[in-house]
Amino acid sequence: MKKQRIDGVISNMKKEGITQIIVSSTASLYYLTGYWVEPHERMIALYLDDSGKAVLFGNEIFGLKSMPDLPLVCHTDSDNPVRDLAKTVKPGKLGIDKFWYSKFLIGLMELRKDIMPVHGSAPVDLARMMKDEPEIVLMRNNSRINDQVMGSIISLLDDRVTENYLASQVNKYFLKNGADCEGTQIVCFGANGADPHHNSDSTVLQAGDSVIFDIFTPLSHYWCDMTRTVFYKTVSDQQRQVYDLVRLANETAISRIKPGVLLSEIDKTARDIIIKGGYGKYFTHRLGHGIGLECHEPPDVSLASEIPLEVGMIFSVEPGIYLPGEFGVRIEDLVMVTKDGCEVLNHYPKELQVIG
Amino acid sequence: MKKQRIDGVISNMKKEGITQIIVSSTASLYYLTGYWVEPHERMIALYLDDSGKAVLFGNEIFGLKSMPDLPLVCHTDSDNPVRDLAKTVKPGKLGIDKFWYSKFLIGLMELRKDIMPVHGSAPVDLARMMKDEPEIVLMRNNSRINDQVMGSIISLLDDRVTENYLASQVNKYFLKNGADCEGTQIVCFGANGADPHHNSDSTVLQAGDSVIFDIFTPLSHYWCDMTRTVFYKTVSDQQRQVYDLVRLANETAISRIKPGVLLSEIDKTARDIIIKGGYGKYFTHRLGHGIGLECHEPPDVSLASEIPLEVGMIFSVEPGIYLPGEFGVRIEDLVMVTKDGCEVLNHYPKELQVIG
Repeated sequence: MKKQRIDGVISNMKKEGITQIIVSSTASLYYLTGYWVEPHERMIALYLDDSGKAVLFGNEIFGLKSMPDLPLVCHTDSDNPVRDLAKTVKPGKLGIDKFWYSKFLIGLMELRKDIMPVHGSAPVDLARMMKDEPEIVLMRNNSRINDQVMGSIISLLDDRVTENYLASQVNKYFLKNGADCEGTQIVCFGANGADPHHNSDSTVLQAGDSVIFDIFTPLSHYWCDMTRTVFYKTVSDQQRQVYDLVRLANETAISRIKPGVLLSEIDKTARDIIIKGGYGKYFTHRLGHGIGLECHEPPDVSLASEIPLEVGMIFSVEPGIYLPGEFGVRIEDLVMVTKDGCEVLNHYPKELQVIG
Repeated sequence: MKKQRIDGVISNMKKEGITQIIVSSTASLYYLTGYWVEPHERMIALYLDDSGKAVLFGNEIFGLKSMPDLPLVCHTDSDNPVRDLAKTVKPGKLGIDKFWYSKFLIGLMELRKDIMPVHGSAPVDLARMMKDEPEIVLMRNNSRINDQVMGSIISLLDDRVTENYLASQVNKYFLKNGADCEGTQIVCFGANGADPHHNSDSTVLQAGDSVIFDIFTPLSHYWCDMTRTVFYKTVSDQQRQVYDLVRLANETAISRIKPGVLLSEIDKTARDIIIKGGYGKYFTHRLGHGIGLECHEPPDVSLASEIPLEVGMIFSVEPGIYLPGEFGVRIEDLVMVTKDGCEVLNHYPKELQVIG
């Protein structure tokens, strides 16, 4: 058990007025226990109350072990998976992990008519927003690997490459550096870059294309995520103008980050620059997202996010401009809030590059 | 909407005594509506009552359309996703899809204190067990493709290949034939085959190895799945004996399949042959699993499965013997129950093969 993290969660439970919760999501369980379990249709659940009592319930197939500070109660495929959990929970409000399957909650409610299920993910989600030292070490290291992969992949641009080929090479480089798995890398040439969610395809690179690399992967369960846009052989005046504007939005937003500022203000800083530059309606998404054990996790970095920045928050700053049928530009860094500003975790340069 | 399938589900609801259900799993929604939506953290839900009333609730980001027989109610990311659903459900018992996230169920219970959530997946799961004509056409076709991929992959065996290489080639052949995605193919050489869940690794093929290919993929959303075991360059007397026993178990079990027989009896038929041959304790898993829109779906094919066979059920028959530290043999076919027996969907031969 991660004592300090558990204490943080209990303190959040008290603020939220919840005395007991069930934690079941893979990332949150890993955060609190060190166990990485993908249960699929089977059940795993950490019961935690505000006195610090913790019990882990899981299918024996997961190969879990009882720990001195975390007793384990196992069930098999032929048991009712919530049978033992039903003996442990107390009457009244019970906070439930947002992604727990209804079949378990209904099973528990059948056995315990005296519980009142309520939304129960916030205490853990709020704790996970502020990264602690071991997490920061991993996040820094993983973004350093991402810098290297970006350099390797940009050097592969030539007349014959396709988006698919480059995306597969990104995965290859990440795996060579210890990535946990392959992923769906975003590589967009020319007009494809005008769709922020374009899936890499067999498009072949052409002179004059803008090239967006949005590359991300988990290593030791923690994600890196960075976007760079470069130009192939030539760059038009409009491409240069759009690039400079996106870079200015990225860098100005980053310069405003410090504890106490609202996340919505960081989004607004970048957005106002793009609006003032005349491209407001082509910046179609939020500025960024929290990142850590999941690629997208709290906090939300958008105009709607009235949350003040706190030391240890890590999130992306990724303004973009998307001109349908023409091209797109996006520049994304991960940043970590520090005592008097922020640390940018990515170091791959942002100067405009024309390759080839 | 698939009228005949909806009628089947309503008939199952009546048998189960449930008047209204919420269907949310990707495969079940596709089965009933033709929409394939992977909602991730967002909400999609089909409301269905026993009068045939059906309403689809989904996030606008899914790009769904209202259909004459299936009105659509959309919400956005900033709405409470269950707000409209709460206006539609009736008081009393409400069957809930087993994999619906608790956050939605809790949200619904907060707005509607007068509902009683109960397990609600069975009506659709039972309907999906018996495949209809369009499904049978796809399942037959996909297993035919699997036969071809098996032939191609076995021809690649030589002194330099690794498990990983062959697994990647299996995916390549499947994709060339229209597979929906890449998958984790099982390729095991020698002692690795003694672990039924071995992940392919960099092991290099050796003379005398048994080679297990357990290859499976979805095509047009329906899965194929087949296992063959061959021997490289030489086969020992024990390998031959084990192979013949597994093949006899596979073929005898298949020969007993016809409507009315219990699934447990099919498992027992195969298991008894392996026990009688002296290898009972090395057949460590159930005989098989239902398959269709999911690779593993009802019915369960095990000693515990007291369900009678019905026309249109499709499931795997995959006995195996696993000798730790030595080798493994598994032979798997998909079969479909017919009026007076069954149709085997795989046609790749089962004669013992020594390759190279």
